[in-house]
Amino acid sequence: MFSLHKLLDKATARWRLREQQGRVLLVGAGPGSPDLLTVRALAALQAADVVVHDQLVPTEIVALARPQARRIDVGKRKGRHSATQAEINALIVSHARAGRTVVRLKAGDPGVFGRVGEEITALADAGVPFEVVPGITAAVAAAADAGVSLTLRGVAPAVTFISAHGADGTSARGWSSPGGEGGTIGVYMGKSAGALVRDRLVGAGLDLATPIVAVENAGRDERRVMTGCVADLPAISERTDLDGPVVILAGPAMALVDARAVPLPHQTAA
Amino acid sequence: MFSLHKLLDKATARWRLREQQGRVLLVGAGPGSPDLLTVRALAALQAADVVVHDQLVPTEIVALARPQARRIDVGKRKGRHSATQAEINALIVSHARAGRTVVRLKAGDPGVFGRVGEEITALADAGVPFEVVPGITAAVAAAADAGVSLTLRGVAPAVTFISAHGADGTSARGWSSPGGEGGTIGVYMGKSAGALVRDRLVGAGLDLATPIVAVENAGRDERRVMTGCVADLPAISERTDLDGPVVILAGPAMALVDARAVPLPHQTAA
Repeated sequence: MFSLHKLLDKATARWRLREQQGRVLLVGAGPGSPDLLTVRALAALQAADVVVHDQLVPTEIVALARPQARRIDVGKRKGRHSATQAEINALIVSHARAGRTVVRLKAGDPGVFGRVGEEITALADAGVPFEVVPGITAAVAAAADAGVSLTLRGVAPAVTFISAHGADGTSARGWSSPGGEGGTIGVYMGKSAGALVRDRLVGAGLDLATPIVAVENAGRDERRVMTGCVADLPAISERTDLDGPVVILAGPAMALVDARAVPLPHQTAA
Repeated sequence: MFSLHKLLDKATARWRLREQQGRVLLVGAGPGSPDLLTVRALAALQAADVVVHDQLVPTEIVALARPQARRIDVGKRKGRHSATQAEINALIVSHARAGRTVVRLKAGDPGVFGRVGEEITALADAGVPFEVVPGITAAVAAAADAGVSLTLRGVAPAVTFISAHGADGTSARGWSSPGGEGGTIGVYMGKSAGALVRDRLVGAGLDLATPIVAVENAGRDERRVMTGCVADLPAISERTDLDGPVVILAGPAMALVDARAVPLPHQTAA
């Protein structure tokens, strides 16, 4: 264990160097299990004066910030906005300008459906120094949970991550042959849009019989791995027992699923 | 710091539970900086009897395994194969069957160009219990280094990871409109194939003026961030000063690059 202590000390020193200057650390919290934080993210939490977090980041991760850090919940959930993006931008800029180390904690990786782009622009415009700390994104955690590989030699030459938000309405941007023939497609936020995701995948060239893996609460102890095929996707939206976020992985490489997975749509509570 | 100790202890207990039984932990080591390991990966290294690692995983990460663990280098590099995939499969199966906890340590994430699929199949065929521990993949670390977002609202609805290996020869699978219009494309192992990657990207519908970010040694202290456009890609292959792995990110979202980045192809050693 001694080596870990040295590792964390070294990582924390990274932020300590510029202690006199306010800055914002845009930190990926990973999929929700505290042990899927990186050491660098932990070190950032240990260096924080202020932690600005979404509701998607579990309390036990926010609790890993140093005790004297001020915690601010700006949680955004579908259908509820406790703070607008503009308000969040203003908040992190003002705390950094007051000389504080601000940790902006985001579920997963900040750069994958984390809306970090808007905050980077605001920080750059304000001349506030910032750094992005990467995190484990949900689709990567889901693949690990299911015991599948997102890319697979001779089968899946690429992997694409896309959000089901925006799948409805006028735009189908991003869904044209995502990842190319055989590539794996990881769909975020598709739980309530199963039929639409099915249609988009079919429109992108996938067969209804293409295998899928759906993982609720990816990366967490309470995860549930479900298997099936593209035709089964509407069944996910009809289920009332799925409380957590669901990631859908689709593509021929998903046929290589861990035998511990339980088939869709017949699975009941684990 | 006390909370971190508890976190690591809890994570290590995860593996301790089944101590009497041999198993293989397929662990993502991240892009190479020790502080980009997850706590779960560190806990796996602390539980290891045997560590089987690639040469792409730096010595300082392998050193984080508990002292009594046996370390086996099965490094694969382009043009050099110290062990075949079949030999690696046999090695991890035999150590697990002898009742040992085997950590198979892979650079980045095991499921993204990590060839974990072959090893999962071998372990499943042999009836050896296994678990995958996700890691930070290079393209995610590269985006963090550059201060860009891989997806961007209204600009990049998706992100695709693809390998430049297989870009030559007969197959262009995976390159057809990867990620769809505006989507970001992360190209792995493209350093020596700049002209080919340019041609594939143009073939997939990208303009020669589409912005790119290329990051050498993503996630590490010695990283170098270079910016330019798709037309500049051949210049990367002509450079003799790039010793480390290079990830190329291409797409309109890459226009939002951290001002600290130095333009391609005029950059010299940092």
